[in-house]
Amino acid sequence: MCRWLAYSGSPVLIEELLLKPKHSLIDQSLHSQLGAETTNGDGFGIGWYGVAETPGTFHSIEPAWNDRNLRDVAAHIQSPLVFAHIRASSGSAVQQTNCHPFRYGRWLWMHNGVIRDFHEVKRELVLAVDPSLYPDLEGSTDSEAFFYLALTFGLEDDPPAAVERAVGLIEQVGRRQGIEHPIQMTVATTDGRSVWAFRYSSERDSRSLFYSTRVDTLREQHPEVEVLRQLSDESRLVVSEPLGDLAGAWNEVPESSWGVIQEGQDELHEFTPRPPG
Amino acid sequence: MCRWLAYSGSPVLIEELLLKPKHSLIDQSLHSQLGAETTNGDGFGIGWYGVAETPGTFHSIEPAWNDRNLRDVAAHIQSPLVFAHIRASSGSAVQQTNCHPFRYGRWLWMHNGVIRDFHEVKRELVLAVDPSLYPDLEGSTDSEAFFYLALTFGLEDDPPAAVERAVGLIEQVGRRQGIEHPIQMTVATTDGRSVWAFRYSSERDSRSLFYSTRVDTLREQHPEVEVLRQLSDESRLVVSEPLGDLAGAWNEVPESSWGVIQEGQDELHEFTPRPPG
Amino acid sequence: MCRWLAYSGSPVLIEELLLKPKHSLIDQSLHSQLGAETTNGDGFGIGWYGVAETPGTFHSIEPAWNDRNLRDVAAHIQSPLVFAHIRASSGSAVQQTNCHPFRYGRWLWMHNGVIRDFHEVKRELVLAVDPSLYPDLEGSTDSEAFFYLALTFGLEDDPPAAVERAVGLIEQVGRRQGIEHPIQMTVATTDGRSVWAFRYSSERDSRSLFYSTRVDTLREQHPEVEVLRQLSDESRLVVSEPLGDLAGAWNEVPESSWGVIQEGQDELHEFTPRPPG
Amino acid sequence: MCRWLAYSGSPVLIEELLLKPKHSLIDQSLHSQLGAETTNGDGFGIGWYGVAETPGTFHSIEPAWNDRNLRDVAAHIQSPLVFAHIRASSGSAVQQTNCHPFRYGRWLWMHNGVIRDFHEVKRELVLAVDPSLYPDLEGSTDSEAFFYLALTFGLEDDPPAAVERAVGLIEQVGRRQGIEHPIQMTVATTDGRSVWAFRYSSERDSRSLFYSTRVDTLREQHPEVEVLRQLSDESRLVVSEPLGDLAGAWNEVPESSWGVIQEGQDELHEFTPRPPG
Repeated sequence: MCRWLAYSGSPVLIEELLLKPKHSLIDQSLHSQLGAETTNGDGFGIGWYGVAETPGTFHSIEPAWNDRNLRDVAAHIQSPLVFAHIRASSGSAVQQTNCHPFRYGRWLWMHNGVIRDFHEVKRELVLAVDPSLYPDLEGSTDSEAFFYLALTFGLEDDPPAAVERAVGLIEQVGRRQGIEHPIQMTVATTDGRSVWAFRYSSERDSRSLFYSTRVDTLREQHPEVEVLRQLSDESRLVVSEPLGDLAGAWNEVPESSWGVIQEGQDELHEFTPRPPG
Repeated sequence: MCRWLAYSGSPVLIEELLLKPKHSLIDQSLHSQLGAETTNGDGFGIGWYGVAETPGTFHSIEPAWNDRNLRDVAAHIQSPLVFAHIRASSGSAVQQTNCHPFRYGRWLWMHNGVIRDFHEVKRELVLAVDPSLYPDLEGSTDSEAFFYLALTFGLEDDPPAAVERAVGLIEQVGRRQGIEHPIQMTVATTDGRSVWAFRYSSERDSRSLFYSTRVDTLREQHPEVEVLRQLSDESRLVVSEPLGDLAGAWNEVPESSWGVIQEGQDELHEFTPRPPG
Repeated sequence: MCRWLAYSGSPVLIEELLLKPKHSLIDQSLHSQLGAETTNGDGFGIGWYGVAETPGTFHSIEPAWNDRNLRDVAAHIQSPLVFAHIRASSGSAVQQTNCHPFRYGRWLWMHNGVIRDFHEVKRELVLAVDPSLYPDLEGSTDSEAFFYLALTFGLEDDPPAAVERAVGLIEQVGRRQGIEHPIQMTVATTDGRSVWAFRYSSERDSRSLFYSTRVDTLREQHPEVEVLRQLSDESRLVVSEPLGDLAGAWNEVPESSWGVIQEGQDELHEFTPRPPG
Repeated sequence: MCRWLAYSGSPVLIEELLLKPKHSLIDQSLHSQLGAETTNGDGFGIGWYGVAETPGTFHSIEPAWNDRNLRDVAAHIQSPLVFAHIRASSGSAVQQTNCHPFRYGRWLWMHNGVIRDFHEVKRELVLAVDPSLYPDLEGSTDSEAFFYLALTFGLEDDPPAAVERAVGLIEQVGRRQGIEHPIQMTVATTDGRSVWAFRYSSERDSRSLFYSTRVDTLREQHPEVEVLRQLSDESRLVVSEPLGDLAGAWNEVPESSWGVIQEGQDELHEFTPRPPG
């Protein structure tokens, strides 16, 4: 099982999110929780937006916090939008091109879960990727193929619809092969402005997903937590598991739904796979 | 441009072939020549047969002789059949799954050259790979796709025919896309008993390929070279470039041909791509 | 905490010891136990004797069984004397030169434990290393410094005496700095023929250490275990923790003692640090 | 032979200095020149100042531009003070702790050259390092030992005097061992505000060192070069070799001298080793 977090808000040092729980919204439990996953992980990755047009990424196949370059980068880059992912391989090679978050142009994508029996359905799914996108597939994971299917179905124009169509196809192909529950997922994707998060599984028993309460609410409830004063009202975290122990800090994303963190009002909707044809 | 060597004969320490020119058929020029390539390389790999059913491989993305594990392995494994390859990337990621030699079951495969404009033809070629083999493709190179096409066309039963059919397809697909000279190649492949080597290019101007003279002939011509006394008569090297300066040691493989090193009489034949259908 | 195992006996594939519990003396619990440590580990290493004068080593800083080269090497090398070690860093860099087993000439050395407050005593201990050995120190760990102290005190001539003198010095230097319990250790060292194992700690509460019962005894008690028929009577394992669930298979090395596995009769003695001067 | 560059001036993307010659003061020849060194290199490193108290560093042992993390970091970090170094090992291990620039607190250090016969003098030099600094030595290179000697002799208070004393000691120790020319060096060091550069060798035949002409002068001479308009007048490069082909862009640092790039007037002085006691 993978783990991920997505942050959007006031610019922060990446290490504030990942490494320094006591100086961040993420309390000390982050360290042990993320730590536990990290040392179990088969690759780690971060993505961030900053001074360039496209996001930067850093992918590591060493146990994450043994990677001194990663620590130094996390300690020296500030960003208003950060993705981080810990991978637990379900079989494909542990190599940088298999580490999340994946990038295409201005977009980032990360996935916790699995396309079941991917070995059986890989060829048919990859064939459904738009031929113009196909040659850019670099790794060998189910998650990257899923990303390219979403791109094929219009991720850049309408992310929720594109993911619903990609999942519809994955379920159709999988069921044709006799796979009972073809997909299990939480997904985050972003264009550098908004962050979309998805929670779904064919068996309707999806991995957990949480988003943080608005900072202004938290600030009212916890005037003693200093870091909250430095964050804008709209700063938000979306995470696989609740972090820290601030009462009232976390809301669970309901089963089979998607949400978007954006300028103005955030939204939360039902997620319904759309089978092709 | 990549470089490779294939050795078949009396069991030798792998380092004798790669690192210790003065104790081997390969004279000191090997060191500098291979050395030059090595430091220019985008990955290095060896494959060998020995105590197990399938061959072992070691793939490195560090400059080859900086990799201490590789040096130690080469110094501690004896084998009667060794492949070694230095990669110069034509664009795809530098990662272990892109390093030659590639392995499938008992087979090894390595390639010097290029499928031109691979980005344009990759999808169509990969689609031609047998669906049962497709999920085992792990990397993103033209050379691995070429290997899987040869497997699809019967490499395990009739290697020359399979490679001729794979090249026929690559040329057909490439020309349909307006690519003038779709393929440039020297290839070596083995099942652990015989070694097949191929020299071909669409423009009939192929990279060089050489095989060593029989050891008994060399021994007669050079009674002063001690190591020759330790090698069996049938020990052979096939290489991208002649190694060492033993007069009479090397024979060029002619343009558009293939040869096989095997028990009994070696053979040399014309290579003729066979377009499908 | 690190873990290690030392094997001496009939030649086996290294993977039989590390990876294939059901085909080896090491039962399935090895996999999970070693596995758990592995993924928690900050480096992994093996050393083995075989075709060359000096032992081979392979050091990895990736989670051990993600390292495909390591798996391939373990599956393709047979050896009658194997050391394996999983490192848990107590602070020094995760790099190959800090991975056990360390090698000097024909000798291998591995250590589970710690020289406490090494940062405080490092300079004085390293100064005590023989000046002719000093420049060969390559890493930055307490364990490598300990090895070089033992070499300085005559490891190659009388291993138990040399280790007793090295520990005597470490305790003297540590106590002078106010360190209550300067050393905690299990150590294995070998010259490729005999294997010496040590269990000691300043507080006389040392980490566990076990050696396997003679194979002939085991064979009598467990006629149903096929692999036992393939091993010579004198094959032996020394391990940090008992492996497998064969009743009667393991003997604990007593507190403050050392043993040697050698041709002829094995021995077990008391371990007594010898302070210098 | 190593190569390095130091940049101080208007904030630039690190890739502008290293990767995009046509958009930078460094013209296209950089790419091929640095490229040539890079692929020959035994490690690469960058250091930069930015959002944190201490500088960030990134050290790579892969051929530099194969390292995708390094490319991404260089493309996403802007900095007013950047060090970059390509290492050619003279024997010590290729590992991240041996890559320049070295860091201590706010200081960075990089060295092109060699302490000759370092194996012979290493112990005596390392013993001269202040005991409080000694435990922080992490690698095994002459260059890092040289840095720690300079720190011992007061680098943080008076860099030129500290380097003169360190070199004085290195020459004294070396000559006592019969080494004719104990040191060859160009060195750059910085506290994040000023950059000191040194050119010296015992044989008075030092490796080359150049600093760039003031940007205002260049701008006058080359009004056609757009990027010059974006840089502040005081932006400066110090490099092992002249880069680009802008006439009038480079000044050679004279033999046996040191200079400082600082706010206000830069300076250039004679360098005179100071033997201890």
